[in-house]
Amino acid sequence: MLAPLPRLLIEPAVHRALEEDLGLAGDITASAVIPADHRSTVMMVARKPGVIAGLDAADCAFNLVDPDIRLTRHVEDGQRVTPGTTVATVIGASRALLTGERAALNFLGHLSGIATVTRGIVDAVSGTGASIVCTRKTTPGLRALEKYAVKAGGGGNHRFSLADAVLIKDNHIAIAGDIATTIRRAKANAGHMVKIEVEVDTLDQLKAAMAEGVDAVLLDNMSPETLHRAVEIVDGRAITEASGGITPETADAIAKAGVDLISIGWLTHSAPVLDIGLDYKNAEN
Amino acid sequence: MLAPLPRLLIEPAVHRALEEDLGLAGDITASAVIPADHRSTVMMVARKPGVIAGLDAADCAFNLVDPDIRLTRHVEDGQRVTPGTTVATVIGASRALLTGERAALNFLGHLSGIATVTRGIVDAVSGTGASIVCTRKTTPGLRALEKYAVKAGGGGNHRFSLADAVLIKDNHIAIAGDIATTIRRAKANAGHMVKIEVEVDTLDQLKAAMAEGVDAVLLDNMSPETLHRAVEIVDGRAITEASGGITPETADAIAKAGVDLISIGWLTHSAPVLDIGLDYKNAEN
Amino acid sequence: MLAPLPRLLIEPAVHRALEEDLGLAGDITASAVIPADHRSTVMMVARKPGVIAGLDAADCAFNLVDPDIRLTRHVEDGQRVTPGTTVATVIGASRALLTGERAALNFLGHLSGIATVTRGIVDAVSGTGASIVCTRKTTPGLRALEKYAVKAGGGGNHRFSLADAVLIKDNHIAIAGDIATTIRRAKANAGHMVKIEVEVDTLDQLKAAMAEGVDAVLLDNMSPETLHRAVEIVDGRAITEASGGITPETADAIAKAGVDLISIGWLTHSAPVLDIGLDYKNAEN
Amino acid sequence: MLAPLPRLLIEPAVHRALEEDLGLAGDITASAVIPADHRSTVMMVARKPGVIAGLDAADCAFNLVDPDIRLTRHVEDGQRVTPGTTVATVIGASRALLTGERAALNFLGHLSGIATVTRGIVDAVSGTGASIVCTRKTTPGLRALEKYAVKAGGGGNHRFSLADAVLIKDNHIAIAGDIATTIRRAKANAGHMVKIEVEVDTLDQLKAAMAEGVDAVLLDNMSPETLHRAVEIVDGRAITEASGGITPETADAIAKAGVDLISIGWLTHSAPVLDIGLDYKNAEN
Amino acid sequence: MLAPLPRLLIEPAVHRALEEDLGLAGDITASAVIPADHRSTVMMVARKPGVIAGLDAADCAFNLVDPDIRLTRHVEDGQRVTPGTTVATVIGASRALLTGERAALNFLGHLSGIATVTRGIVDAVSGTGASIVCTRKTTPGLRALEKYAVKAGGGGNHRFSLADAVLIKDNHIAIAGDIATTIRRAKANAGHMVKIEVEVDTLDQLKAAMAEGVDAVLLDNMSPETLHRAVEIVDGRAITEASGGITPETADAIAKAGVDLISIGWLTHSAPVLDIGLDYKNAEN
Amino acid sequence: MLAPLPRLLIEPAVHRALEEDLGLAGDITASAVIPADHRSTVMMVARKPGVIAGLDAADCAFNLVDPDIRLTRHVEDGQRVTPGTTVATVIGASRALLTGERAALNFLGHLSGIATVTRGIVDAVSGTGASIVCTRKTTPGLRALEKYAVKAGGGGNHRFSLADAVLIKDNHIAIAGDIATTIRRAKANAGHMVKIEVEVDTLDQLKAAMAEGVDAVLLDNMSPETLHRAVEIVDGRAITEASGGITPETADAIAKAGVDLISIGWLTHSAPVLDIGLDYKNAEN
Repeated sequence: MLAPLPRLLIEPAVHRALEEDLGLAGDITASAVIPADHRSTVMMVARKPGVIAGLDAADCAFNLVDPDIRLTRHVEDGQRVTPGTTVATVIGASRALLTGERAALNFLGHLSGIATVTRGIVDAVSGTGASIVCTRKTTPGLRALEKYAVKAGGGGNHRFSLADAVLIKDNHIAIAGDIATTIRRAKANAGHMVKIEVEVDTLDQLKAAMAEGVDAVLLDNMSPETLHRAVEIVDGRAITEASGGITPETADAIAKAGVDLISIGWLTHSAPVLDIGLDYKNAEN
Repeated sequence: MLAPLPRLLIEPAVHRALEEDLGLAGDITASAVIPADHRSTVMMVARKPGVIAGLDAADCAFNLVDPDIRLTRHVEDGQRVTPGTTVATVIGASRALLTGERAALNFLGHLSGIATVTRGIVDAVSGTGASIVCTRKTTPGLRALEKYAVKAGGGGNHRFSLADAVLIKDNHIAIAGDIATTIRRAKANAGHMVKIEVEVDTLDQLKAAMAEGVDAVLLDNMSPETLHRAVEIVDGRAITEASGGITPETADAIAKAGVDLISIGWLTHSAPVLDIGLDYKNAEN
Repeated sequence: MLAPLPRLLIEPAVHRALEEDLGLAGDITASAVIPADHRSTVMMVARKPGVIAGLDAADCAFNLVDPDIRLTRHVEDGQRVTPGTTVATVIGASRALLTGERAALNFLGHLSGIATVTRGIVDAVSGTGASIVCTRKTTPGLRALEKYAVKAGGGGNHRFSLADAVLIKDNHIAIAGDIATTIRRAKANAGHMVKIEVEVDTLDQLKAAMAEGVDAVLLDNMSPETLHRAVEIVDGRAITEASGGITPETADAIAKAGVDLISIGWLTHSAPVLDIGLDYKNAEN
Repeated sequence: MLAPLPRLLIEPAVHRALEEDLGLAGDITASAVIPADHRSTVMMVARKPGVIAGLDAADCAFNLVDPDIRLTRHVEDGQRVTPGTTVATVIGASRALLTGERAALNFLGHLSGIATVTRGIVDAVSGTGASIVCTRKTTPGLRALEKYAVKAGGGGNHRFSLADAVLIKDNHIAIAGDIATTIRRAKANAGHMVKIEVEVDTLDQLKAAMAEGVDAVLLDNMSPETLHRAVEIVDGRAITEASGGITPETADAIAKAGVDLISIGWLTHSAPVLDIGLDYKNAEN
Repeated sequence: MLAPLPRLLIEPAVHRALEEDLGLAGDITASAVIPADHRSTVMMVARKPGVIAGLDAADCAFNLVDPDIRLTRHVEDGQRVTPGTTVATVIGASRALLTGERAALNFLGHLSGIATVTRGIVDAVSGTGASIVCTRKTTPGLRALEKYAVKAGGGGNHRFSLADAVLIKDNHIAIAGDIATTIRRAKANAGHMVKIEVEVDTLDQLKAAMAEGVDAVLLDNMSPETLHRAVEIVDGRAITEASGGITPETADAIAKAGVDLISIGWLTHSAPVLDIGLDYKNAEN
Repeated sequence: MLAPLPRLLIEPAVHRALEEDLGLAGDITASAVIPADHRSTVMMVARKPGVIAGLDAADCAFNLVDPDIRLTRHVEDGQRVTPGTTVATVIGASRALLTGERAALNFLGHLSGIATVTRGIVDAVSGTGASIVCTRKTTPGLRALEKYAVKAGGGGNHRFSLADAVLIKDNHIAIAGDIATTIRRAKANAGHMVKIEVEVDTLDQLKAAMAEGVDAVLLDNMSPETLHRAVEIVDGRAITEASGGITPETADAIAKAGVDLISIGWLTHSAPVLDIGLDYKNAEN
């Protein structure tokens, strides 16, 4: 069940993308060479296999250029495509279609890229019970959209912002003094609807954290064997999250160690785009 | 000679990134566990080899959180780093340092990632005379910064927007009718300071374009052999640009075909981040 | 330990307040009657007893009118004042001081009003172990500041937004069908760092909720006796929150029923301002 | 005759309220537990007696969440309600209705609260010829809406901003030197369409002001007897405005002293919300 | 006594001007040809005689490009210059000076142009007792600045917006039915601090307006003789304003008819710029 | 072929104009005197001869005040009008029509003024082969609209921003040292799609520039005779542009010297408005 993002969270980003692309003169190529009254049907077509995300943003891009453009989806966000799959048909004034093309495709390709790599790693751990989640390592300005794309790929979301939940990391502990003190301060100051997670590098740190009691533990850069032992120590008293340098190749072994979650920054910060193009089909009357 | 971006083009993007990360409650972890008057020295350290870009954005992120933070660069944008290189030292209130960390690193990692892949491909064609340039396939909201990062990696910039230059593509020709008509319309309508480029798929199209006269030709998806022939046809009368599916492996052969430019979308749309972390060094007095 | 709000969360609201107050002509009274080079010392003085909150916003208001104004605090946010207490001294150009006065006082009075009523109710339940928290019934545009003011008054914060935590209310249950189904859907879809709370009107509903397991229960409009029974039923397995029509008179009895939290909308939506004025002290040279 | 505010003056405030409430993840409760295609009829129902204001803002809130929601009014702004009065019926997608509920009610409750207290004091002076007006002591960011709510309650508006009219207060006089000098400067510098009012604390000051000639006098903190004498002194040559600590209990005596206007800050800065709730009625097909 | 505009009313317009001029690539000429560390002294020099206005905006333009630039004024807003007068000296990084030049000069030239034509007409009516005022026929986005420039030229300001004062025009009367009804409605609905003016085309209309009583009358397109008669009819009971097609040539005769004000749209909508250039003086060390 | 500006480039400027004109209280005259349900037909009528530009902005102004207003054009942008020509008919709520009138006319008059003076000078050089182009001397905030208006008047556009093209001016050369060095730096650093123009004051400078090779030369303040000689020197190897103090009287002689372009700042910075009024026609039912 993938809930769409409210348009309020999509439109400002799309507006900015179009402002970038229109400059002060607009699309001088389309204006120069395409007759004003020419109308077309074009298709957004996948060139590579993947998972689609971002159709609302693509639709919004065309719509902000020209509210009379109509986009019809043949695939929904979260669905797989193969090379040649027509993702959507778009009909409207030819100039406006070509003007909106790049902004629409930049969103669709970027977000589908995230959904695609997420789906790959989700499938790699399928059956283990571990969930794949993203981090705050997102592209500046696109966090809401990228977190949504991860969900479209079958993943889950960790914190959306520093305001969401307490996550105590190594630098916090280094400054605050020791893990127990840090956790106690967090409990004393955090609100009642806020969960507290602590990052640990060793099993000793883990034991210290569990002695204080936390909602979740981030097990940083541990081998599958150490993770297995960590899961035993936690013994269901907290959510267990593995993190740090996990790849599609190592994910399955990590997952089989029994952790609840695997968090991966590259889902959002390093996913290559999914190649989707816009093909002209025919003129409209 | 890498000219810095004006702060007017950096600050709005950094502001948005911080708004995303602060929510309405701010950094509830740092507020809860770090004493208000604690000050630290931290270091931004490269974890992988690469080329740095985005120090102004990183500095701006810390500065918007707390104008009293001081960032000292040990490396400038455009310079290479190896794992362990300290990119910058940052001194200030510990809470503010940790609050600004993720926004600063998200910019620095993303832009350095682009500079790094650009540098890789620029080096791959070194000595051939071909320049590597990026496209309009940028991440929405970050075009100015990403174009700058490409320059930091030794590349050049193609169009910044639809308003910059005329680039006639296949869809324009399909709608306008034929290549000669399309070019003539462009010449009749484009301003005198605007260059005109046309995308061609075949040598016949190229000949048709050259018969009309254009400033540049985009040679789409051609083999090195065909590109070589295309360069001969153009014979210095236009800038020649190769595009389409070029990889680090194929770039050298493409470049040796004699083209002036190689344009590559994945410099900006698919570069993985350069891994840069923030290490706590010591408390300040 | 009251952590200040980042200026990024304060300045936009203050900017808007000044835009409202300056129109297109600015302060036509001060411009007409005060010499441009006249400088003054003025004092912000409490006229009524209360608790101060909002000094950063007041400082920001003066600062946005004229960056050379200097505000010195004699009281910090969260501290009590009595009639006549000088909260802060402000020195600068007389015109700018009078131009910024109303915006500064509107923030300071509004937020101190919230801190004051919060402190009153927090004191009323002192010793019971119950915390007083605010809700999402905040004044549009001021949520971050009002939530901060509640903390300045000794209270805590419930959800900051719909995105923070799951809170299942009567309308959700009415639409979803029954309480167990609703809780199961929430668990299946909510992220791992998100707490789940459910609002119940009766002890039967409470038992149904506890049977599914939730992080917190909102006990709506229950008498102290029923609340006492509810706390027994929950028996430490969830956070208990009383809500609905609680007044300073009834709060103590509610708190003594043993609930963890008492949430009160009128802390933010109906607190009268704390009367604070600006007194001219003398001219500066 | 209550003229509606232009939507341009309403929508930005509503947009900000929704941004506050949606965070980056949107309404995670509704998304998790309400089926995407479920549609409902809900009713906004008054829980207390009062006067309604803010229906355009409430409508705008639902509309920005989902343009397909339809709100039908059963009461217009400015009309009285009793507990149980259905103010409006709202029909649309259930998720969107619940997502927009709080923002809509926060506006409607806040503005109706202002209209209600205004109506109360307007009724208290009914028949005396005195008008009740609000001040610039408004909630930051909501001045246009709050001034409108005062009119919905039967009151009038004093200055909207520092740019509207000249109002000489005690601090201006203290700095400028004396009341006559201050008034003369104001007359020399203010535009021809701008009225000039002066605040006086004593009858001597009043006489000095009238000797210069002003459009209006603000009679600050005077007893009914003194006000009566002040009205005699003014003798129709200026508008007379009483201000300072006026309550519903004292308003009638103040009004009977013959002043034209009574200005009251707490209409806008301290009015409690009018309690209005949203009740689920039934599912739509 | 010319009061400066608050920076809050200047900076957004200057920011927009720079955004227009920097695009996404910034000043590619200065970046390409000027060494990064080169510093200069440049001078803003009048090429034509006129009156200066807009130095704050010009200063803000340089300051937003580079906060280290220092602008020293040799002339203040409102003062006359002759060809060759150095208006200001500006010192800073050469690139930044050249990047900010056009935005700075566009403001300074435009606003000085308005001040210059205003001064011309003010001088033309000197000694008559009539004031020259501008209208709402301003350049979109620049009203506050243009109204300020009129004051710098010795003129005054009519309404700043539709919200300032009531001005009943021919179309209002045509719709409302007749002049008396229209004025009565205005009096019944306008606030007590709001002046009411009515536009009349004939002496009969004027008599009808005066019979109702208004604060000001706008005498539209009347000859000096008719204006003289109108002033007699009004006989000091209202402000008299002449408007409609008044030129420097006709202004003196109009003014001598005894009107209080002459309002002129072309002060703001059609004033040519005052030619001011930027001259390079020398390099700085 | 005049391509319309995208609404994204029009609406923000129109929004700002309406914000300026509505203040916080809106149109207090229309609200006070026009019945809420009165509807009218009004006409926008030219009072002077000229060329129309800006109908999209005018339409947008009415539309932002009230989306139900309908504007029907009788003339298109770029067409000539004579005194009395009805440019458009506008039908809708009378209050909204009068509220939007001034913003709509301020855009239409300003942009038509630019189109009109442009058309005048374009006609003056008709038959010579020279094009008339505008500069970056535009009114702050309106560059995109003003550049469009120049095209509506038959002119062309020079650079839209500093980011568009390299234009080396006297100050660049003074700082960089000499013309050849400056051009070489520009060529080394500018992108391949960017044209390079250099401003020259003398024929010697021109020869130096042509020796390096540039795309265009700006011939500054030269007599027709010198321009003629310059055109001979260039001999088709670059675009020739005359600039500096050109008036309608001198333009023809300049054009006949054989230059390709004549650039004129006053098209945008000093064009008087075209007088267009709004006439009430009748009430609608």
